[in-house]
Amino acid sequence: MSSGPRIAIDAMGGDSGPAAMVAGAARAFRRDSTLQFLFYGDEQIVGAEVARHQNLKGAVTIVHSPESIDASEKPSQAIRRARTTSMGMAINAVKEEKADAAVSGGNTGALMAMAKLALRTMPGIDRPALAALLPTLGEQDCVMLDLGANTECDAQNLVQFAVMGAAYARTVLSISKPRVKLLNIGTEELKGTDELKEAAALLREATDYLPFRFNGFTEGDQLSRGELDVVVTDGFSGNIALKTAEGTARFVTDLLRRAFKSSLRSKAGFALSKPALNLLKHHLDPNNHNGAVFLGLNGLVVKSHGGANPKGVANAIGVACGMVRNDILRKIGDDLDDFRAHAFANEAAQ
Amino acid sequence: MSSGPRIAIDAMGGDSGPAAMVAGAARAFRRDSTLQFLFYGDEQIVGAEVARHQNLKGAVTIVHSPESIDASEKPSQAIRRARTTSMGMAINAVKEEKADAAVSGGNTGALMAMAKLALRTMPGIDRPALAALLPTLGEQDCVMLDLGANTECDAQNLVQFAVMGAAYARTVLSISKPRVKLLNIGTEELKGTDELKEAAALLREATDYLPFRFNGFTEGDQLSRGELDVVVTDGFSGNIALKTAEGTARFVTDLLRRAFKSSLRSKAGFALSKPALNLLKHHLDPNNHNGAVFLGLNGLVVKSHGGANPKGVANAIGVACGMVRNDILRKIGDDLDDFRAHAFANEAAQ
Repeated sequence: MSSGPRIAIDAMGGDSGPAAMVAGAARAFRRDSTLQFLFYGDEQIVGAEVARHQNLKGAVTIVHSPESIDASEKPSQAIRRARTTSMGMAINAVKEEKADAAVSGGNTGALMAMAKLALRTMPGIDRPALAALLPTLGEQDCVMLDLGANTECDAQNLVQFAVMGAAYARTVLSISKPRVKLLNIGTEELKGTDELKEAAALLREATDYLPFRFNGFTEGDQLSRGELDVVVTDGFSGNIALKTAEGTARFVTDLLRRAFKSSLRSKAGFALSKPALNLLKHHLDPNNHNGAVFLGLNGLVVKSHGGANPKGVANAIGVACGMVRNDILRKIGDDLDDFRAHAFANEAAQ
Repeated sequence: MSSGPRIAIDAMGGDSGPAAMVAGAARAFRRDSTLQFLFYGDEQIVGAEVARHQNLKGAVTIVHSPESIDASEKPSQAIRRARTTSMGMAINAVKEEKADAAVSGGNTGALMAMAKLALRTMPGIDRPALAALLPTLGEQDCVMLDLGANTECDAQNLVQFAVMGAAYARTVLSISKPRVKLLNIGTEELKGTDELKEAAALLREATDYLPFRFNGFTEGDQLSRGELDVVVTDGFSGNIALKTAEGTARFVTDLLRRAFKSSLRSKAGFALSKPALNLLKHHLDPNNHNGAVFLGLNGLVVKSHGGANPKGVANAIGVACGMVRNDILRKIGDDLDDFRAHAFANEAAQ
């Protein structure tokens, strides 16, 4: 059997630690037995977990990490412990080309800081962005970036995010020409900040040779309608939108739970509707959309939700594999080169 | 019977025009028969609608407006037609003290521009803000501002919004010491933009003499938990959060509808649960939270949702009356004076 993607796993990160990370790897391995895993963490604890998953035998290397990064640790402190922690060592495995991607369920700020320092940004990218999938009413999830890596962004950053997000949708989601929009507070050309207006103008000018469709601005109420594939925004608004969406989904399902408990009659209705409601639950379960990606670095790092269960971890590993198999870093690089070549040609012609 | 608040109504604004606005007024009048209405709009059309609501007889004056503002009209064009349009004339009635508040379901941008020009900002307020109520899991709705009046805000703007939002919660929602937070992308002191950090520092310094509790930062997923009374944000993030919340609530209810339709069994479950689900529907119905307010002007203007039904319009009128009866403009003025007096004293002492 040919060897597939080599995934470095920070086995100590995440709320449930090694148990969920190893079980998630075992689950991913059942789907794709060409995977190779490098687990970083306490050798004894991780070893005991690995021993519980017979199917992983032969596909796993455990590398002892004497320390791990705390969930509340400041990024500035964390980066000093890159060489001794499971998170830092997993990222270094990508840098040293021992692994094709790293997956961690640990402290997001620390992971981002460490990944940036170890892997550096790709040529042509000023800042990396955090991208994730939002559930929609459509057939496909929608890619959204940046989700918090950059509090403020200029027009060039936003254009680069659009190119990276589209490359992600083309490869991992197999959408040949993704529909891309910028998140704004109105859809008219005059709406929003100067950065947004300038980014829209740059993308509109490039529309003929972009490997995606730039469709202008969108608003917060359109994100889950399934009518767009990539939403681009600065990290502040992106984080607000993502968390507001999570909070509102929980709010509505909490109200629903209350409604079903409100009378004997509605309890009976709930019992009858349960199989159908499980579909709703499945659709909204964050584990089914798990795996946020740092795009724009010279290497692949995936953030798994801290509270992810084994299914969620397996999905995050699946996201990493999708990017490795589709050689997303090369595609982003090519797209950026194309974009710049055309932009230069346009400028020269003017 | 003593005369209550005099409400100027832009009868031509909103998707359903005079029919919904007049029916909404009739509904509000059934709750409070001291109200007086000034309807601005086409005399014939509005007159015909008023004639359909016997109970309004004697409480209504119709003022003919030859024109109305289009839903897609640019604010810069709209302001030139303040004297001849139903929207402009309703706002002018407030300016000329013929009415205590104006209510419109028309074009938000035009309404804001006209209100700002006619009424001017209050002393001590640099920019007015648009405030509205969000549904929560708690007993009370939560006030959120700014929702789009100001794309960018400095620390002073945010502090003024906090004072205005708290005055709104104290008066209209009768919360004696509202819990106020700033919307951010994390709750640690170091998170977010410089403007947010500075606003938080100013509010924290003032904590002993504020007529509200400033509780630091909050995130998008906390807005509907019922654990805070006022959320303060710039108009860009506020608009993104509000629309994302609306879109997500619709997304989840759409998924729910699909789930119930997916089998005969779940259809039967739906039929049984219907009374309980109607409670959910009621809680999420935007008509029950209708009435956004421009705070910080020398006069009260309420924006009713364009698609509001008569119940929604009646609620927007109720919001206007609550502010009039509680003399919110004086309270905001007093609170700002107090805040500044203490801030000056602090500065002098340093």
